[in-house]
Amino acid sequence: MKNLGWHFLVELNGCDRHAVDDPVFLRTTLIDALRAAGATIIQDVFHQFSPQGVTGIVAIAESHASIHTWPEHGYAAVDLFSCTQKLDAQAVIDALAVATRAKSIEVREILRGREPQRERLSLEPLAGQSP
Amino acid sequence: MKNLGWHFLVELNGCDRHAVDDPVFLRTTLIDALRAAGATIIQDVFHQFSPQGVTGIVAIAESHASIHTWPEHGYAAVDLFSCTQKLDAQAVIDALAVATRAKSIEVREILRGREPQRERLSLEPLAGQSP
Repeated sequence: MKNLGWHFLVELNGCDRHAVDDPVFLRTTLIDALRAAGATIIQDVFHQFSPQGVTGIVAIAESHASIHTWPEHGYAAVDLFSCTQKLDAQAVIDALAVATRAKSIEVREILRGREPQRERLSLEPLAGQSP
Repeated sequence: MKNLGWHFLVELNGCDRHAVDDPVFLRTTLIDALRAAGATIIQDVFHQFSPQGVTGIVAIAESHASIHTWPEHGYAAVDLFSCTQKLDAQAVIDALAVATRAKSIEVREILRGREPQRERLSLEPLAGQSP
């Protein structure tokens, strides 16, 4: 069985510190990018921390997107979790990278929900066949 | 420099399908566990899908927690992202595993925000010293 979710963990470094400290700007950027990428927005939460930093989370029908920023380090941690490959994750990542003026982008893709216990169980008959 | 965030990706398999299809139960469980673990709740979103499945996201002062469930597969994908090690992540994971009656639990810890471009830049003077 294939996996149930595709989870992209994105490290944006060298970001513009004003861009990543602006919850209104980040909210507009992320929600517009998600919609353009084919996502259906359910609800969002954006929060400005004191003295700096933003947390933004968007629940989408396909799962969620989040951004946490450390303006003092020019860093933003972005997550995009989707239950479908129809959502254009790369377009969302690109939009955030451009908007935050990130100088470096690292993306890890992690497959979620591969049901390890079924894979393990499927090995048992094979083990039983060995001498 | 150490990392800025600790991100736990948790795969709960073999869950009770009624438990993971109940947004009120999952919300109470997750929020109570987060509070007990030392988190400060900002806002949450829980959504019931049709015909089944729940998405829950909790914005916390320390970053976020999320749960996405596939009751038909007895599977829940849990994320806990924290900017501090003071939050007792294991206690939150344990609480969700017990509540969902998961038969197997897989946890991956991913360090976020290690500023790779600074690490790369720091190598340049060393390279310049070589013959």
